[in-house]
Amino acid sequence: MDNTNTKPELFTSLSPALLSLYDISSSIVVIIDVLRATSTIATAIYNGAKEIIPVDSVPECIRIGKQMGAITAGERDGKVAEGLQYGNSPFEYPATFIGGKTLVLTTTNGTKLLHMALDNGASEIITGSFANLEAVCSYLIQQKKPVLLACAAWKDRVNIEDTLFAGAVIQSIKNHFTINCDSSQMAEIMYKQAQPDLMQFMKDTEASHYKRLAAFGLEKDILHCLTPNTAPVLPIYQEGKLTKG
Amino acid sequence: MDNTNTKPELFTSLSPALLSLYDISSSIVVIIDVLRATSTIATAIYNGAKEIIPVDSVPECIRIGKQMGAITAGERDGKVAEGLQYGNSPFEYPATFIGGKTLVLTTTNGTKLLHMALDNGASEIITGSFANLEAVCSYLIQQKKPVLLACAAWKDRVNIEDTLFAGAVIQSIKNHFTINCDSSQMAEIMYKQAQPDLMQFMKDTEASHYKRLAAFGLEKDILHCLTPNTAPVLPIYQEGKLTKG
Repeated sequence: MDNTNTKPELFTSLSPALLSLYDISSSIVVIIDVLRATSTIATAIYNGAKEIIPVDSVPECIRIGKQMGAITAGERDGKVAEGLQYGNSPFEYPATFIGGKTLVLTTTNGTKLLHMALDNGASEIITGSFANLEAVCSYLIQQKKPVLLACAAWKDRVNIEDTLFAGAVIQSIKNHFTINCDSSQMAEIMYKQAQPDLMQFMKDTEASHYKRLAAFGLEKDILHCLTPNTAPVLPIYQEGKLTKG
Repeated sequence: MDNTNTKPELFTSLSPALLSLYDISSSIVVIIDVLRATSTIATAIYNGAKEIIPVDSVPECIRIGKQMGAITAGERDGKVAEGLQYGNSPFEYPATFIGGKTLVLTTTNGTKLLHMALDNGASEIITGSFANLEAVCSYLIQQKKPVLLACAAWKDRVNIEDTLFAGAVIQSIKNHFTINCDSSQMAEIMYKQAQPDLMQFMKDTEASHYKRLAAFGLEKDILHCLTPNTAPVLPIYQEGKLTKG
């Protein structure tokens, strides 16, 4: 018997501005912000953070941080946001610092998208990045639910690195899903092309975010964020918090 | 002297839902709806149509058609729209039929996008498709103005064929423009991959629109719409009409 029809659907949204095109009421939404929010989230949780509270504005970040006595962190336009203690680099969150602590985080694109997915009625929200690629893939296969891979992009403009991560997930799990989605096909094609050397691919294609971060001297961050499975953990969003799933 | 900074910028919008991210007030906007609106527009104009009036609704199409004694044509969801005389296939518009005539046209995605570009203040609007690839490229190089390649997509969902055409244009004209746009890079990578056999690429990637039209028996249309330079003409939009530029 052909069981094609029993496989759940998978779609890819290449920009937050496209999110509303997809019915996510019964879907797991994977928030993807490779440079650098979801890489940092995976790293901090893997390194023992008690919980991460994603918020969508700097004032909210400061307010909740004070209220909970938590660490405040975040960036705007690739730099530490004024008034916050820490930035959006995975290297800022080693186990010796973040273990057992609560982090309140706000970023230009990733945390905003998470709140959009929430407002659009997502059944479930997790975060994905190369840092936790395998953990995300295993979970999605196991759950047997529809999936939306939601790229955070840059101020709604499609970006290469989030598309590549969507492609990496698709390449790994596609046999378990029904995929009728050109964006997903494009993401997989891009990833196949880039896979031999993601960092070189980002340089060669003059990816806009590569150029932006490299200009701040953050090439080390980029390389780290493109390395698979450095933080094998599954951040799940529930009741306002991301915790280890 | 490095004249990089004097080259006009080029961006690609992969969906009408992303159009508003780009300032097009001094740009030539290329409307791209490969399957099939802009292929049909190029073909009809190349075959001698006096003018094409793109409208965004079926009732408007019928009203203007009656008023002008013009041919009404268009599709919704890939089929001839109810109440209109003709469809959206380039094969419906040979010179013997369309020569000297006015066509009022409405389509699911392409004509809507054209009106969005107009509402967003585009400096100039032309239409592009593989049918008139070289004509579009020559014109864009010649004009030395900023360019937005605007894909019509499918009900705002990114599609492969419009992305491929954007990539074909970029491959041909990129040395004349400043390109800091991940969507453009992605389009060019996709096109390089597809270029040896566009039709086979559409089949292999299970492009959603390929499947939709093939299910209506329209493979011949698809192949024609992917063939370069069958209608070497430049449709320019001015005062409500597309005419030969």
